[in-house]
Amino acid sequence: MPIATPLTRLLEIKHPVLLAPMDIIAGSRLVTSVSRAGGFGVLGGGYGEKAWLEQETAKLAELRAPFGIGFITWSLAKRPELLDIALAAKPSAIMLSFGDPAPFASRIRSSGARLICQVQDETMARQALDAGADILIAQGTEAGGHGASRTTIDLVPAIVDLAAGGVPVVAAGGIADGRGLAAMMMLGASGVLLGTRFYASQEADGAEEAKRRICAANSGATVRSIIFDLSRNNVWPAPFTGRCLVNDHARRWIGREVELMQNVAAVSAEYAAAKISGDFDIAAVIAGEAVGLIHDIPPAAEIVERIAAEAEQLLAGRRNSVASLA
Amino acid sequence: MPIATPLTRLLEIKHPVLLAPMDIIAGSRLVTSVSRAGGFGVLGGGYGEKAWLEQETAKLAELRAPFGIGFITWSLAKRPELLDIALAAKPSAIMLSFGDPAPFASRIRSSGARLICQVQDETMARQALDAGADILIAQGTEAGGHGASRTTIDLVPAIVDLAAGGVPVVAAGGIADGRGLAAMMMLGASGVLLGTRFYASQEADGAEEAKRRICAANSGATVRSIIFDLSRNNVWPAPFTGRCLVNDHARRWIGREVELMQNVAAVSAEYAAAKISGDFDIAAVIAGEAVGLIHDIPPAAEIVERIAAEAEQLLAGRRNSVASLA
Ligand SMILES: Cc1cc2nc3c(=O)[nH]c(=O)nc-3n(C[C@H](O)[C@H](O)[C@H](O)COP(=O)(O)O)c2cc1C
Ligand SMILES: Cc1cc2nc3c(=O)[nH]c(=O)nc-3n(C[C@H](O)[C@H](O)[C@H](O)COP(=O)(O)O)c2cc1C
Repeated sequence: MPIATPLTRLLEIKHPVLLAPMDIIAGSRLVTSVSRAGGFGVLGGGYGEKAWLEQETAKLAELRAPFGIGFITWSLAKRPELLDIALAAKPSAIMLSFGDPAPFASRIRSSGARLICQVQDETMARQALDAGADILIAQGTEAGGHGASRTTIDLVPAIVDLAAGGVPVVAAGGIADGRGLAAMMMLGASGVLLGTRFYASQEADGAEEAKRRICAANSGATVRSIIFDLSRNNVWPAPFTGRCLVNDHARRWIGREVELMQNVAAVSAEYAAAKISGDFDIAAVIAGEAVGLIHDIPPAAEIVERIAAEAEQLLAGRRNSVASLA
Repeated sequence: MPIATPLTRLLEIKHPVLLAPMDIIAGSRLVTSVSRAGGFGVLGGGYGEKAWLEQETAKLAELRAPFGIGFITWSLAKRPELLDIALAAKPSAIMLSFGDPAPFASRIRSSGARLICQVQDETMARQALDAGADILIAQGTEAGGHGASRTTIDLVPAIVDLAAGGVPVVAAGGIADGRGLAAMMMLGASGVLLGTRFYASQEADGAEEAKRRICAANSGATVRSIIFDLSRNNVWPAPFTGRCLVNDHARRWIGREVELMQNVAAVSAEYAAAKISGDFDIAAVIAGEAVGLIHDIPPAAEIVERIAAEAEQLLAGRRNSVASLA
């Protein structure tokens, strides 16, 4: 029996599994697969490319399943007109991460869409609740991409306690299988949001070589740092840093951030060239600690189904890794 | 019904809740309370003070419940005779952390005691299994005290997969309530090891002010760094650093480690004086991210019972924080 939670009821979805709005990677193809499989696809609006957003939202017109659209809040604040394009696509929810959601909250909610806010600590969670968030995502430092320092098992119960049953809390960061979903439900979460796991799916708009590296990496192979933002000349507000696979470029600059800043013109030229040529020894593969649990590149629907089935069995007590020792 | 796992069967205990061998803090009084409540107390052998060890093990002679004794492996290697004192106390297990257990494994196992090894990554886990470990503890970076960088939800499934049912895996780092125990069981762990939670118990041999600070801290209030070891002139082998509550001293030196090293004589004199006078604005309170979940200083037996009861209810599906939203 599918896992029913306040989240699945609110979003009218079958499985409490959300696709993270990964900039570039989570396009309409991936959103469609996740949502059709009974999860909740969230389009990666990212920094906000108008043409891309129009094109991808147009493709979602045929979806006929609930989906969302995500933005990087501080970046959306520079191009607020993108929110109109997003809302015109009639998403069930808009997801905002990294910044104060208040300036956008009333437009989102009066459109009928739910407001999902991804937060990294209690202060941000309170800000999101004050803005009227319908769903909180508690993102731990394990997450791929931008995030902060608190860990998932520390942050999730803290945000669950803070929300006190008022809104569903979704766990993000380091989750890639049904064990993770079941564990997060024990901590009081209503579901999970996954980025890295869906990156390594057939429908993700990422380079094959990047997906291959995610499958090959073991879980100690990522690092959260500012090197990647420095190298691509994309400075983020504190406290956010980016988690990526450790590669030659990261090994070269970790601990030498000041020197990198002093040479930023040369480094960023080299980095930009590597991105274009697909040289992932220099260009970063954005991925989180969950890489250790990822060994294949299946269709996204299969990921949703596997996770849901494994968690259902664990929660029903029918399957427990521990039982094999009994 | 109590939670039965391969761990509870192996150690012949009622609840899958282990006390961490916290240096100084986990003396015979705390071990006695935890073990009598049906958990598994592990005496904090720490760096190895002979007189203290003799005195505390003598007090355990009356315990009549299973207990263990823990050592810091690299430190025990300098005083291997301490293992004889420990084994003479007839513990059910010896727990070794931070270093190669191989030199001690056969003496421990031929005495009839189980060998418990705390590990921070897959390489250390393999080393422990090769040495014949009976139980692995997967310690995440959330943990109070010394540890490494991998997070609990990343490391636990990785070590469970590596152990492949051969030996029970116990989760450590960031766990302080029944939600944490239930979550770790979903990840495949057979139980949990708790340090910080038991520090804030009546029987812990710690200063009242330290316990008070643990209760007051929220979970973002700890930091893993080398400042604390530098300041007390106690250099640890890589990759281990210490997690403590952030205090004035930590705020003063974080990011200025090189300067600290250059002034180590003066700083360590000041630090030593603060330790003696109980000035916790300078001396560190060793504690992990679980501080956010800790708000009281109950008897240790109550902690064991609360955690077991909450996890039992969650695992039986009778209580779920999520249900309150349904
Ligand atoms: C490749 C990649 C790109 C990401 N881009 C964004 C983004 O544009 N906006 C955003 O809110 N989060 C972004 N994230 C973070 C996710 O929202 C989410 O918190 C994270 O993926 C969860 O952790 P996991 O990667 O361990 O599943 C990105 C993550 C990845 C892996
Ligand atoms: C005050 C304190 C002292 C500790 N001392 C030791 C020690 O001497 N030997 C050891 O193996 N681990 C020690 N640890 C680490 C524990 O073994 C354990 O991994 C940790 O407490 C688990 O995380 P938690 O603090 O979040 O429960 C200590 C932890 C604390 C909080």
